[in-house]
Amino acid sequence: MAKPKYFHLSLSLLLFITIITSSPPSLASRLSNFPSSRWAPRFLGKFSTSSPPKQPQPPKRQQQQPQIRYETRYFAQRLDHFSFSDSPRFQQRYLINTEHWVGPQRLGPIFFYCGNEGDIEWFAENTGFVWEVAPQFGAMILFPEHRYYGESMPYGSKDEAYKNASTLSFLTAEQALADFAVLIAELKRNLRAEGCPVVLFGGSYGGMLAAWMRLKYPHIAIGALASSAPILQFEDIVPPETFYDIVSNSFRRESSSCFNTIKESWDTLVTEGKKQNGLRQLTKTFHLCRELNSTDDLANWLESAYSYLAMVNYPYAAEFVMPLPGHPIKEVCRKIDCCPDGTSTLERIFEGVSIFYNYTGQAKCFELEDESDVGTDGWNWQACTEMVMPMSSSRDASMFQTYDYNLSSFQEECWKDHNVKPRPTWITTEFGGHDIKATLKSFGSNIIFSNGLLDPWSGGSVLQNVSETIVALVAEEGAHHIDLRFSKKEDPEWLVEQRATEIKLIEGWLEKFYQERKSKFDM
Amino acid sequence: MAKPKYFHLSLSLLLFITIITSSPPSLASRLSNFPSSRWAPRFLGKFSTSSPPKQPQPPKRQQQQPQIRYETRYFAQRLDHFSFSDSPRFQQRYLINTEHWVGPQRLGPIFFYCGNEGDIEWFAENTGFVWEVAPQFGAMILFPEHRYYGESMPYGSKDEAYKNASTLSFLTAEQALADFAVLIAELKRNLRAEGCPVVLFGGSYGGMLAAWMRLKYPHIAIGALASSAPILQFEDIVPPETFYDIVSNSFRRESSSCFNTIKESWDTLVTEGKKQNGLRQLTKTFHLCRELNSTDDLANWLESAYSYLAMVNYPYAAEFVMPLPGHPIKEVCRKIDCCPDGTSTLERIFEGVSIFYNYTGQAKCFELEDESDVGTDGWNWQACTEMVMPMSSSRDASMFQTYDYNLSSFQEECWKDHNVKPRPTWITTEFGGHDIKATLKSFGSNIIFSNGLLDPWSGGSVLQNVSETIVALVAEEGAHHIDLRFSKKEDPEWLVEQRATEIKLIEGWLEKFYQERKSKFDM
Repeated sequence: MAKPKYFHLSLSLLLFITIITSSPPSLASRLSNFPSSRWAPRFLGKFSTSSPPKQPQPPKRQQQQPQIRYETRYFAQRLDHFSFSDSPRFQQRYLINTEHWVGPQRLGPIFFYCGNEGDIEWFAENTGFVWEVAPQFGAMILFPEHRYYGESMPYGSKDEAYKNASTLSFLTAEQALADFAVLIAELKRNLRAEGCPVVLFGGSYGGMLAAWMRLKYPHIAIGALASSAPILQFEDIVPPETFYDIVSNSFRRESSSCFNTIKESWDTLVTEGKKQNGLRQLTKTFHLCRELNSTDDLANWLESAYSYLAMVNYPYAAEFVMPLPGHPIKEVCRKIDCCPDGTSTLERIFEGVSIFYNYTGQAKCFELEDESDVGTDGWNWQACTEMVMPMSSSRDASMFQTYDYNLSSFQEECWKDHNVKPRPTWITTEFGGHDIKATLKSFGSNIIFSNGLLDPWSGGSVLQNVSETIVALVAEEGAHHIDLRFSKKEDPEWLVEQRATEIKLIEGWLEKFYQERKSKFDM
Repeated sequence: MAKPKYFHLSLSLLLFITIITSSPPSLASRLSNFPSSRWAPRFLGKFSTSSPPKQPQPPKRQQQQPQIRYETRYFAQRLDHFSFSDSPRFQQRYLINTEHWVGPQRLGPIFFYCGNEGDIEWFAENTGFVWEVAPQFGAMILFPEHRYYGESMPYGSKDEAYKNASTLSFLTAEQALADFAVLIAELKRNLRAEGCPVVLFGGSYGGMLAAWMRLKYPHIAIGALASSAPILQFEDIVPPETFYDIVSNSFRRESSSCFNTIKESWDTLVTEGKKQNGLRQLTKTFHLCRELNSTDDLANWLESAYSYLAMVNYPYAAEFVMPLPGHPIKEVCRKIDCCPDGTSTLERIFEGVSIFYNYTGQAKCFELEDESDVGTDGWNWQACTEMVMPMSSSRDASMFQTYDYNLSSFQEECWKDHNVKPRPTWITTEFGGHDIKATLKSFGSNIIFSNGLLDPWSGGSVLQNVSETIVALVAEEGAHHIDLRFSKKEDPEWLVEQRATEIKLIEGWLEKFYQERKSKFDM
């Protein structure tokens, strides 16, 4: 039984650290009166939260990397760069490390991570690549926070900033890019480092920002490493089924029976829910803390787990978003496939997603909805304004419930929820995307689009070289921006090679930059 | 005697058609209590007005060109593209001609003039080049109006749009570019012409917009002809003396005695003004309609004439901004140099500038200040917000009074006048400019910067090739965007050749575009 669902395309994964006993809060889960609501994919920024976790242990810092040392500073940033209205400034937080920087005289490079939808400290901790390679480049490291996230709140507090559509109205990618540009320009002026080259880094939405920043501000940054950046996930540039088809493939490649069990489980879920005491029985089967009101809520919770699992399907154990084993989808499918005879489909499903929600085994029960996150979060707003990413679930290739994307319903929901009208064609008007190869073949340079094909966001990214200097690095076995993570001894060979290629390309940009300066000075 | 002066860098020349008996209104002229105020250079858009002229004859359309046929349409444009605040829409006017367009099936090109600071009909009439070449390209012609000019007024009327700093706050170049991008995207969608290549044209500030648009929106337009576009007239990219030095050179090259007479006239003016009945005598000498209050006002009026003359120093008679003979500076200098003995310096100066203000001989007296334009005009606002162009007048090379640019006084004046704080470093942050050759050598393509060295704005433009496809066409004898004007039988050979080169380059962009489409379809 296929029923229409509401995909809210909020691509971050905020606040997930808090929810060892709870489901990822989503706009959809709040729309309990909306019959077609369902969980929708978000990026991983969701897991970046500065609010105190509800459950005892927040995920530990990745291996407590010693490389991560920074000073925290604040920059008084304009709320509105594109009008001269009398809007207040806000304090943009940024993390800075200059200990390896060779300084302005030697034109030491500046490595600049384009902060995305979450607390910047979390991104700094999970972007080990920048910390590892900066010393060999003699580079300064900057991690600026994205406006409206972490501590970088307009109007003084999150409550004020998120009060209504008017206070949120300046939460846009263009304003964030202008923040970055102004910050770099000001910092360089203050340090007399105007001549120093800037290299951009970013993962996920941050990778989109990095790529767009290089395209829009070539005078500010000489190149960008855009990892897992789905800049093509708009309008009809890629088929709307892409995301869920990739998630589904990631399960099917592990086990077709796992894929089939999940695919069949939705009907089972609904059938069970309709039985007398069905919801109570489901509450018990899934160890929920509160009695289930609707099978939709449970479906959202499950779909959420599968999608996140596909993103973080890393080859080694990690505590990136949740403590997880290496190859977590393999582990989930082992549970789903391999339970003793007589175990029901839904019991096996529960055992499977427990890998995701409860790998440490400490959760006694699960909350489907995180009360603390019922209010608007930033990515929900962004998804309802600019980041309109159409997503469907196809009948055959997807293991999810069938769903056809419907822009009108989406717009209605956004109006109901945020009092704002999405602009579904704005991103491609402002940043392009259609026919990207033709547009950028002889325009622009120095962008790396790195992707792993296990990552459901890879389908909306750039997977082919566009030109000699706008290149795609595609790893078959990669998940969501794994290349940006700290290196580990367990890293597979392809990952070691991919990072080496990235370093080589960045070296090439810098060499060319220095050569041109030199020939200019020699003239 | 050199005294400090206030340069307000409003680069348009709005409303000048109306002022056969009046001086070009300028912010400076309104600041009569400000001792250092003076006239400041503006672009030619000033002459584009839709308000009825005070004096009988408005300049006739250039030769009543039959090519200029268009339909006038309006597009409901967002007031603020970069926030999701609940701002109203406004009607953007655009002129469209499709009679030569070969249509979407044949991917007929779209020639798009980036409307600048004035009434779009005036720009259409004075951009004959586009009308002349479009038919041979089978191109559609679009002339969209710039927001806050002509009929394209937010809030329903100029009075409302220009009411205060808050209503004016959306008058920015970035918003105007976004207007263009959205208009093109929407029009293409409606015409199913998404595949059709757009070529941008623009002169002066419109040329700056064309160049910036190609750089910021490469997915929207394949190339830009940016004529007389001083995109480098910001901060310290070019010396602040550049503009007035070029004006002065344009006079000196005609006659060094003319240059010297003008250079000496300022002291004479002040000395005469200080005499008993001096201001009354000056009023008489200069045939002013009202008694002079201050020699500053008269100095502004004279400086204005010299600067405009340098811009429109065309080799043939034209009625572009005023009815003028060919080589008007030569004519002015002939008057200044050649008057009968016994004629005073100031009488000769008056005879000289009468070539500019009264070539038709119909004016009986002159107004220094145009009452109708005492309010804020758009370019004054733009100059006080983004378009902060530092300009000085040097002691030796300039024939104008010596003046050192002072940002603080400028900012104070803007605050006093418009209740707004200029952002002097914003344009270079948003659009670049420093080190343009290094930035764009391997980034971007298909821009022609055309300039004439007689034009004082040429000094702030791009005068050297940046790369193989970002090129400079420099004509020694050219004035302000003469290449965009209708061809005439009197056109000098270099101008004929320059236009032929421009056509060839545009053909090259289109050919490459079609080739790439073809190879894509062949694949």
